[in-house]
Amino acid sequence: MCETGKTKVAFSAMLQKGGEAYGPFNKDIILAYNKVFTNIGDAYDSCTGIFTAPVAGAYHFTFFYHSGGEHPSKLRLFKNCERIVMTSDLKSGSDKADNGGNGVILLLRQGDQVYVRMAAKGYVWGDDYTTFNGFLIS
Amino acid sequence: MCETGKTKVAFSAMLQKGGEAYGPFNKDIILAYNKVFTNIGDAYDSCTGIFTAPVAGAYHFTFFYHSGGEHPSKLRLFKNCERIVMTSDLKSGSDKADNGGNGVILLLRQGDQVYVRMAAKGYVWGDDYTTFNGFLIS
Amino acid sequence: MCETGKTKVAFSAMLQKGGEAYGPFNKDIILAYNKVFTNIGDAYDSCTGIFTAPVAGAYHFTFFYHSGGEHPSKLRLFKNCERIVMTSDLKSGSDKADNGGNGVILLLRQGDQVYVRMAAKGYVWGDDYTTFNGFLIS
Repeated sequence: MCETGKTKVAFSAMLQKGGEAYGPFNKDIILAYNKVFTNIGDAYDSCTGIFTAPVAGAYHFTFFYHSGGEHPSKLRLFKNCERIVMTSDLKSGSDKADNGGNGVILLLRQGDQVYVRMAAKGYVWGDDYTTFNGFLIS
Repeated sequence: MCETGKTKVAFSAMLQKGGEAYGPFNKDIILAYNKVFTNIGDAYDSCTGIFTAPVAGAYHFTFFYHSGGEHPSKLRLFKNCERIVMTSDLKSGSDKADNGGNGVILLLRQGDQVYVRMAAKGYVWGDDYTTFNGFLIS
Repeated sequence: MCETGKTKVAFSAMLQKGGEAYGPFNKDIILAYNKVFTNIGDAYDSCTGIFTAPVAGAYHFTFFYHSGGEHPSKLRLFKNCERIVMTSDLKSGSDKADNGGNGVILLLRQGDQVYVRMAAKGYVWGDDYTTFNGFLIS
């Protein structure tokens, strides 16, 4: 069979909230990365921050953040309600800048949802740094 | 020629060792990421931590870790016996959390092996954070 | 239509400058990652550090760095003259090692240029750590 009509899916988005700190909030929130660079297949929703797989397949995801040390940072990638991988840093009086990220390849069924949740009481930088990317490998 | 029968290869795995610290050990070890998310083509061996290319091609790899500051962390991606790229952090009394990662695209021959080695006397976090991912681009 | 003749594009390169610190310099510079692992399509120029898209499409980029704390580090990925995403860390007396990275997927036209610029007065490690990778998804 030829690759005719193969569905292409790729998205890439960044938090762009107009200031340095985004958070802390008093409860966990899904990060709604609102500056969209790419959304082939229109499967990423920048209002909710949720990617919904339009077709079954293997998807590659990465997410990165930057923050300061005044509050902790804890981001976790979920598949539906399942915790998959995370990145975090602690509050620190001495280290004024933190970076982190992670990546994973997941086998998704059509309709599976993937998103990044930020834990309550933490924060990330809201401009230029904090990103969420994914694409269909096969 | 059509893409008929194109071999798909992708793996993604995480250290899941049931506690925070994995290490330090008194010698270098290959990290055997034991929680396997994806293993299309069955080319990643979670007992050894070694990925063996089933076909020649260009492969994309990423690896990420998290650790505390009580010990250093030094991870290096190898292709067979060749050092390729690394990520590391020093012991630190003041900064209690460290993140790092790296990525590379390598041209592999069939049978080439790729893995991540952690240097002696260092450690990484053994749950939710420390990952190794790869897939065949072409 | 079959995938016959599909152009494959992928590059991966690392700074290899023979010492730990690369910089600081008194002005912004484009990082010319000079140790080339992969350059399918010959679209990455290791003399200038600039990737020029040979065909239109969706491209996936990652970049990672390591540095010490004696100077800040600030790296930003550009598309032509447009700032896209960045990673950075501050000067720090207490935290002697910094890691960072970011990723993005961009829709490029043929001839669009992508590169990483390091801000004046900052530095990164010039061996084994600091990488720039990209490939054509579709």
